[in-house]
Amino acid sequence: MSLPETKFSLFKARVNEYIEAILPPHTAAAPRSLYEPIRYAMEGNGKRLRPVLLLLACDALKGPVEEALPAAAAVELMHNFTLVHDDIMDHDATRRGRPTVHCKWDNETALLAGDGLLALAYRSLLNTRSPNLPRLAQVFTNGIIELCEGQALDRDFERREDVTMPHYLGMIMRKTARLLSLCTEMGALVAAANETQVKLVRQFGEHLGLAFQIQDDLLDITVSQDILGKDFGSDVKRRKRTFLFIHVMTHGGVRDRDSLKTFFQKSAIAKADILAVQQIFYAAGAIAAAEVAVSDHLQKARHCLAQLEPAIDAAALRELVEMILKRKA
Amino acid sequence: MSLPETKFSLFKARVNEYIEAILPPHTAAAPRSLYEPIRYAMEGNGKRLRPVLLLLACDALKGPVEEALPAAAAVELMHNFTLVHDDIMDHDATRRGRPTVHCKWDNETALLAGDGLLALAYRSLLNTRSPNLPRLAQVFTNGIIELCEGQALDRDFERREDVTMPHYLGMIMRKTARLLSLCTEMGALVAAANETQVKLVRQFGEHLGLAFQIQDDLLDITVSQDILGKDFGSDVKRRKRTFLFIHVMTHGGVRDRDSLKTFFQKSAIAKADILAVQQIFYAAGAIAAAEVAVSDHLQKARHCLAQLEPAIDAAALRELVEMILKRKA
Repeated sequence: MSLPETKFSLFKARVNEYIEAILPPHTAAAPRSLYEPIRYAMEGNGKRLRPVLLLLACDALKGPVEEALPAAAAVELMHNFTLVHDDIMDHDATRRGRPTVHCKWDNETALLAGDGLLALAYRSLLNTRSPNLPRLAQVFTNGIIELCEGQALDRDFERREDVTMPHYLGMIMRKTARLLSLCTEMGALVAAANETQVKLVRQFGEHLGLAFQIQDDLLDITVSQDILGKDFGSDVKRRKRTFLFIHVMTHGGVRDRDSLKTFFQKSAIAKADILAVQQIFYAAGAIAAAEVAVSDHLQKARHCLAQLEPAIDAAALRELVEMILKRKA
Repeated sequence: MSLPETKFSLFKARVNEYIEAILPPHTAAAPRSLYEPIRYAMEGNGKRLRPVLLLLACDALKGPVEEALPAAAAVELMHNFTLVHDDIMDHDATRRGRPTVHCKWDNETALLAGDGLLALAYRSLLNTRSPNLPRLAQVFTNGIIELCEGQALDRDFERREDVTMPHYLGMIMRKTARLLSLCTEMGALVAAANETQVKLVRQFGEHLGLAFQIQDDLLDITVSQDILGKDFGSDVKRRKRTFLFIHVMTHGGVRDRDSLKTFFQKSAIAKADILAVQQIFYAAGAIAAAEVAVSDHLQKARHCLAQLEPAIDAAALRELVEMILKRKA
């Protein structure tokens, strides 16, 4: 195991310990009906990518990693708030290979558990001992607003025919990339980095996030359920305007475009349809284009790190870029 | 119109102006599908009781009312977040005489609009220029967590037979009273009040809130839909363990208890059933007991103010107590 991977595991373990310690017990006074689904949502085999990213950014900038733990826990709690609520909105039945909260309990319980997760996220964040606390809270809050906007756009796009690549990129910037960039930015703020560093570290997080989401679009159609823990082709079933779909609609030939439209207009999409769509994505060059876009954003992410060196120790963040590039789930 | 009423109207107008100014526009970039339901939720004919209470508390303690506006807007935005989400959970169709957000749009849109309202609440709060900002955010956040706990308990109680008056009081302390006490406490914190004052003003808010909720239980069964803008007897229809129900179960005779249980176990509750339940509430002395409890908490609220005088100008807060005592909606 390489050194950065060890650091990743170490930070992940610290995050999990810290989260475990701050979650309230479920008693009659602090009702089980609230805290049991909250604990359930926080268990499961989450990668803890976001809080670890925050700690790695803080560490790279020579900040106090232990002081960054409340903020790291906050982003993980907040991330799970979005997952629980998004799963209700998207009617998703499984998450990380387990029933989603609203399927294990019901929509009402999941809605309230999500609200509780967000409030607990703020409680954790406010335990950060940093003169930058008000700004940390602002970055965190603006990020949540953008996440809501991104989710609204994502849902809008499912019913729109005119979604372009710039629309799509604006949506995933809010829905996915902002969450990663707020992690890196908050890590830099706990580390009391200077403004140039904060900006570069935020941009690093944005490119990492854009790459991450485009790769997510790819994995949905190239990887089986066993690995990803969610349905193969779930984006197709939900008529999502992914990078792949938009690429075909923008750059594909008439036959591919018409064929794809036909599949997306079907009332029910079967496994065979998904495989056919997959073929179109390959044939029209959408898969290759997505792979290029992922590499491109990761290259830009690396470039941000290069500008920060040698003042910072970016080895672990570089390793993270490679991990994301190679991920299969 | 008395002087404090003028102050109430004045502060309410300032709150409405301020909220209008900070709500984002709805454009393609800041999606209509998010901001239209958010604006809708914030319109309607709300009393703005909570933000005005915050401003009145700040004003009574000789604090800068204009500096308290971001916090006042925050509590109103947050209050509306709870209303939008509670209405989904409770399947309520009307609110302030208008369709609820999830009925006008759908559950998914309302869920996301609620999330957005909470994030916008924090954005507003974080604009407060006060050295007490971290503590303001803590009081606000802990209040939201208690609100979630109160909502969970309220829902639990609908399915429980063993709810006692202490359980009930613990629930309404979280679900209703804490929101009012966080308003008074935050007003005091913006005013940079001393710890004794902060504590007394918080206790004032708690008693005001307890009185407010018990009176809400009363109004549900004693006032018609026209005035309250919600269904007559909606608590009965929902088998809510209100003050009235618990009083009968604790202090009522066997016949009243059995009779009430029978009504609450019916699969469908008709208007005639509600009127019969109303008769039991009167006959068993529950209405009278609730009226005594309301007076008692308002008296305690007044006592808190008396302890704060003459250092503070509590005239407007006293007037608010009388307004709550006399309210019919």
